[in-house]
Formats: sequence, structure tokens, C-alpha cells
Amino acid sequence: MPPVAGVKLATAAAGIRYAGRTDVLLALFDQGTTVAGVFTRSKCPSAPVDWCRAHLKAGAASALVVNSGNANAFTGKSGRQATRLTAKIAARAAGCKPSHVFLASTGVIGEPLDATRFATVMDRLIASAAPSAWHEAAKAIMTTDTFPKGAAAMARIGAAPVTICGIAKGAGMIAPDMATMLSFVFTDAPITSRVLQDLLKQGVAGSFNAVTVDGDTSTSDTLLAFATGAAAMRGAPKIAKTSDPRLRAFRKAFDAVLADLAEQVARDGEGARKLVEIIVEGAVSKSSARKIALSIANSPLVKTAIAGEDANWGRVVMAVGKAGERADRDRLSIWFGGIRVAHRGERDSSYDEAAVSAAMKKPEITLKVALGLGSGRDRVLTCDLTKEYVAINGDYRS
Amino acid sequence: MPPVAGVKLATAAAGIRYAGRTDVLLALFDQGTTVAGVFTRSKCPSAPVDWCRAHLKAGAASALVVNSGNANAFTGKSGRQATRLTAKIAARAAGCKPSHVFLASTGVIGEPLDATRFATVMDRLIASAAPSAWHEAAKAIMTTDTFPKGAAAMARIGAAPVTICGIAKGAGMIAPDMATMLSFVFTDAPITSRVLQDLLKQGVAGSFNAVTVDGDTSTSDTLLAFATGAAAMRGAPKIAKTSDPRLRAFRKAFDAVLADLAEQVARDGEGARKLVEIIVEGAVSKSSARKIALSIANSPLVKTAIAGEDANWGRVVMAVGKAGERADRDRLSIWFGGIRVAHRGERDSSYDEAAVSAAMKKPEITLKVALGLGSGRDRVLTCDLTKEYVAINGDYRS
Repeated sequence: MPPVAGVKLATAAAGIRYAGRTDVLLALFDQGTTVAGVFTRSKCPSAPVDWCRAHLKAGAASALVVNSGNANAFTGKSGRQATRLTAKIAARAAGCKPSHVFLASTGVIGEPLDATRFATVMDRLIASAAPSAWHEAAKAIMTTDTFPKGAAAMARIGAAPVTICGIAKGAGMIAPDMATMLSFVFTDAPITSRVLQDLLKQGVAGSFNAVTVDGDTSTSDTLLAFATGAAAMRGAPKIAKTSDPRLRAFRKAFDAVLADLAEQVARDGEGARKLVEIIVEGAVSKSSARKIALSIANSPLVKTAIAGEDANWGRVVMAVGKAGERADRDRLSIWFGGIRVAHRGERDSSYDEAAVSAAMKKPEITLKVALGLGSGRDRVLTCDLTKEYVAINGDYRS
Repeated sequence: MPPVAGVKLATAAAGIRYAGRTDVLLALFDQGTTVAGVFTRSKCPSAPVDWCRAHLKAGAASALVVNSGNANAFTGKSGRQATRLTAKIAARAAGCKPSHVFLASTGVIGEPLDATRFATVMDRLIASAAPSAWHEAAKAIMTTDTFPKGAAAMARIGAAPVTICGIAKGAGMIAPDMATMLSFVFTDAPITSRVLQDLLKQGVAGSFNAVTVDGDTSTSDTLLAFATGAAAMRGAPKIAKTSDPRLRAFRKAFDAVLADLAEQVARDGEGARKLVEIIVEGAVSKSSARKIALSIANSPLVKTAIAGEDANWGRVVMAVGKAGERADRDRLSIWFGGIRVAHRGERDSSYDEAAVSAAMKKPEITLKVALGLGSGRDRVLTCDLTKEYVAINGDYRS
């Protein structure tokens, strides 16, 4: 992944919970960097989510501090104090206002976060910050992830090339005790915070909000985007309107980075062996298609069937039926891996069992449902539900 | 379980799918028997569910035919034909109208049901029907259930004793391919179908509708109640109004039978090792408490934690937060097995870890959440999520 002008990264091992690995990421931004964010819809958000929401309005960022090992969620007053102290420590070292420091935490819920640990590593972080440490950055924020997640894209705004780089962590929507999907996207494009917020809000609908591992929404889900504006020095025009046609190519590249990261999160779901794409078409609306697709994607019985490499369309019928959205049993058709197994409310007697079995053995499976009611279509990504998921999430005390 | 005057039961092995076991239940009712029913909310219900809904309005029943092994769901036109033929076969043998025959099927989805199989056993069923074959009846309708489920209660209407007996099958909300929760309740009380429908609708809210195994709603869930009225011969007054004060004791007994059967369904959830009671109090309303309780009960991360005997209240916070109902993180308190582990938005530092560990090892666990917002309270039952659940539902093809 290439550097993003105006962004420097550093990681350190602060010993928050893990031994022998990094657990803090610091990102430093040049003056004039704008910021946007979207967060968990949980009614019980973590302290860092509250912090970011409160400071997002000003739209300006100088630093980002992320830690793994402790989510600083359900930590009450001490959690709020920890966010204030973390921002203060980073602001002092970076020479900025605490309100320009953004925060995210992932890890155990309910344990007080000792923010003084950040003070012990902050000078070293500032001193070692460098432009291209993406791999180290993605590793420092991992919890039960099995691989670090990053994606990059280039685009032009006007004639000037701009860069977009992103990192993410996932695993469970909320992992063992390891809460959170976190993702951070960085660009040198000169974009106002309002436009960045629009791009993020629109881009997330088809990417991160279209991914589910287990339907369990974390207290801490955070996606922040930072735009340094450094590409203006290479002639990129400043973009202040979301409708600006010069933004078109950038938006496409930005969406591609979000989609790539989101797919990596689905692929690395806890215990997952298969990436599953669910397509619903012919629904009465797009939002109805989304609800039905999520009902299928979150059904334990559909997910265990896929783990068992069984094209069990009866369970798909069940999941369509329980979604509560308009559906007509007798118009429903279902495909696994491109092979139609059910047609207009009955088993498709013509399908080739061996071909379906072969399709189900692949590591990536597409499951399509056609409702035959309208033109509403949507797509979500998920993974299978294996014994390893239960082991990761249930075995450590038994 | 005692006989219910006016009800006779018989079972047979029709070879619908299973070998070496019974798979058909016939219940015969005396003239004048009333009937009521509640069904799955699935938008893709099975053919027998459609059949029962259509014929329930007349409120009169002469026979009930239940089969296991094939759900007759997503079977299109042939499914509708199969219900018609089944009712016709039973009606001819029992000497009643087909519309007075009620039907339920549980088993594979999407396979055509060969209703002619019922004809081969119908005469034998009629000939062998007897008053007290509850155990055999409960066994004939099992799919992945590990034990047959029955419950009975006595009450008085006026001075006359009346009997209520019920049977059920569960396992997954929809089991391997084995769709369905089915339950049938029988009484000799003289109650109109309208009153019976009221009792059923009200009784189901706190029993069967408060149970979840995996959140997957079957295409076939069916609960039917039959009242023969035979107790009128022993002096029981005919009840035609739900508000009749003479119904009070009966209603209590009726609700107890439903609650007992529903608890057995939760206890015998697929792969379950623990029965889990979720109590939510202090919500803004009873329906809000129900939604939050179901969010906890259906969370894979809460359920795997309980399988791991881990009092993981962080995941409970997550599940409260994702329910979308009003909640204030800083007022939330959580108990496992009667021991408070979190208080007003933070870990309860005073709790005894050893005592909680001991409580989590028990086969029955109560998880209580107090929201501190209002007086809304509700309770649901569920079970833990184990590797056996995944094995039962995913292993048979891998």
C-alpha cells in the first residue's frame, strides 16, 4: 500500500492486555485534515464512540489513537475519564487540541482502561511515525482476526492523482470478548468534512452495513475517514460539494476501498471457512431486499447448512418467511452457486445434484433468491457458522 | 397423563421418511368438539398451516392428523393437493366432513408429501384409537427431539372437574430439515371455539411465543387446542364468554400446560445443555422488555458464552444495545444466577467470582437485566448454543 501524503503512522506495545505484540496505533495528520465518521447503532455505545461523535462536528483531525485489548465499553465514568486522558496525552505530544484527537478501542468490555499506559509509549510513537506503516497499523488493531486487513486505490480529482488507503479489523461483529469492527480510511484528497461525511454515509450502505458475521452488533463499531488535502499541492481542486462532478472517479475508488475492507471482514468471520454472498432480487423495494438478505445471512440454520456444504434451500425459504417482508411462497426461486434448485415455490426437479454438491464445496458461495414481486434488489456478505465459531466464543472457560 | 373424555388417539408407522418408528398421529373427537389455533408468522407457511387457517373459522373439529418426516412446506400445488387428500382419507374413515379434519406436518421442506400413505394405515388407526395413548402420540410427532413432551392439569369449571392434556415437539425452531414446533392441547371442558381462541391467543404470549432456540421461525409452527365439551355431562357449565368468572381456574391450568410444554421445547433445543431464563425488567414497556429479552436470547455470542459457562455480561450489554429499544448504559445492571455482576453501567466490583462460576455450571441459569427506566418486565426461555447444534445442523453432508 502506498503512502498517503499528510498521514504518518506508528505502533507500539503498551501492554494493555496482550503480551508480545503491538496494541496501540497512532496516526498523525497534517494541518487542515478533515474527518468524518459512522458508528454503531447500539444504544449502549462505548466511551470512544461517544467521544468521536461529540468531536466530529468541528470536522478537523490532528491525530487518531486506537488500542486493542480493551474496548473501554460499559466502563461508566472511568471510561469517559480514560477517553479524556488519552486525548490529552496525544494532544500534548502532537501539539494539537484534545478535541482534534480521535479515538477507538477494541477488546474486553467492562474492564477499566488504564489510559496512563498511552503516556509511556507516546513519545516513542511520535518519534517513530512514518508514512507507509500500513501493515503494522493493521496488525496493531487486530483481536481475533486471523490476518491484517488493508486496501488501497488511486483516483484523479481534476488532473491530480490522489490516494486512498484503508485498514480494518473484524472477526465477530463482536469477537470473543473482543468487541468491534473498526476501520480507518485515509486520503490526501482535498475534501471538506461535510462531503467526506456524505461519501462515508453513502459508501457504508453497500459495504460495511451489508456485512454480517453473527448479527451481533458491537458497542464499538467505528469507521472514520480522514482527508489531509495534501494533494492540493499537486493541483487537486478543493471539493466542497458532494454533487461536484470532479468527485465521481474518487467516489468510485473510495467505495471500492470500503467494499474491499468489508469483504475481508466477512471472509475472516470467526471460525469461517466460506465467504457467502446473498443476493435478493424481485423484492418490493431495495430495503425489503436488504431485510430479507440479512434474515438469510443471520439465520443459524442457513449458516450451519453452508458449513455442511448442503444446498439446503428449505432453510432459505424459512429465512425468507421469517423476515416479515412481502414474499409469495409460490413465486420464490432459489439458486446456489448459480444453479437453480427451487423454482416458483417448488423444488426444481431438473437440477443436477452433483453440480450443486461441487458448487457447495467451494470457498466462496453465492446464494440467490428471486421473489418475483418487484424490482427491489440488494446484496449482503456473510460467512458460514462452524463449530470453530462456537469454540472461539464458548470454549475458553469450559 | 389422564384421558380426556371425548378424545381418542392412535399412532402408526406409515414409512413417510423414517424406518422403524411411528410417524402418524390420529386424534378423533366426539361430536361438538370446538377448535382454536395459532400459527407461524412466516410469510411462507406450509400447506397444512394454510389448510388449518382456512378451516378454523367454522370452529368445529372431528379429527386431527399429524405426520413427522415431511413438512409439506414449499411444495406448491402438490402440497395443497396432499392436504386435501389427507383430509378426505381421514374424513371418510372417521365419518365426518373433510373441513372438520385438522392437519399438521413436520419434517423435510420441499419434498412432495405422498398422502396416499395415510390411506394404508387409516383403517388400522381408526380401529386402534384409545383414550390414553399420550406417550405414543408425543413420540410419533418427534423429529430431532430427544424426549417426548407432554403436560397435564386438572381444574374445575363450576363444581365439575375438567382435564387438560397437551403434547408438543420442538428441537430447532426449525430442526435439521425438520421444520416446526407443533403442539396440541386437548380438554373436555365445554368451551366455545371463540373463547378457546381467546385463551390460546393470550396463553401463547407468555409461553410458546416466549421461547426461542435459534431465532429461526419455522414455516410450520402450529398450536391447536380442542375442547370436546364432554365434561358438560358431569355438570360443567358451557362457557361462551372469555370474561366468565367460572373460567378463571381453567385458564390458569390451561396456561400452566402451555408453559410446561413451552419450557420442555426450550430445554430440548438442538444441542442444548442448559435451560436459560432471560428476565428483563425496568424497561419502558412490556413489549420493549420482550424485544430486549429476545435480542439477548437470540444472540449467538450470549448463547456460546453460556455454553462455555462464562458469565459474560459484556455480551449481554451488546445484546441490549443492539435491540434498538430504549436503554441507558449507565443505569444497566445484570445478574447471572441471582448474583449481580454489573451495576449501573460498570462491573460490580463486589461480586464473588467463585459463586458466579458455580452458578454458571448449573443446568438451569437465570440471566436478569434491570434497565432502570420504567416498569416494563418480561421473560423468555432459551438454551445455550453448543458445537452439537452446529453438528446436528451442519454435519450430515460434510
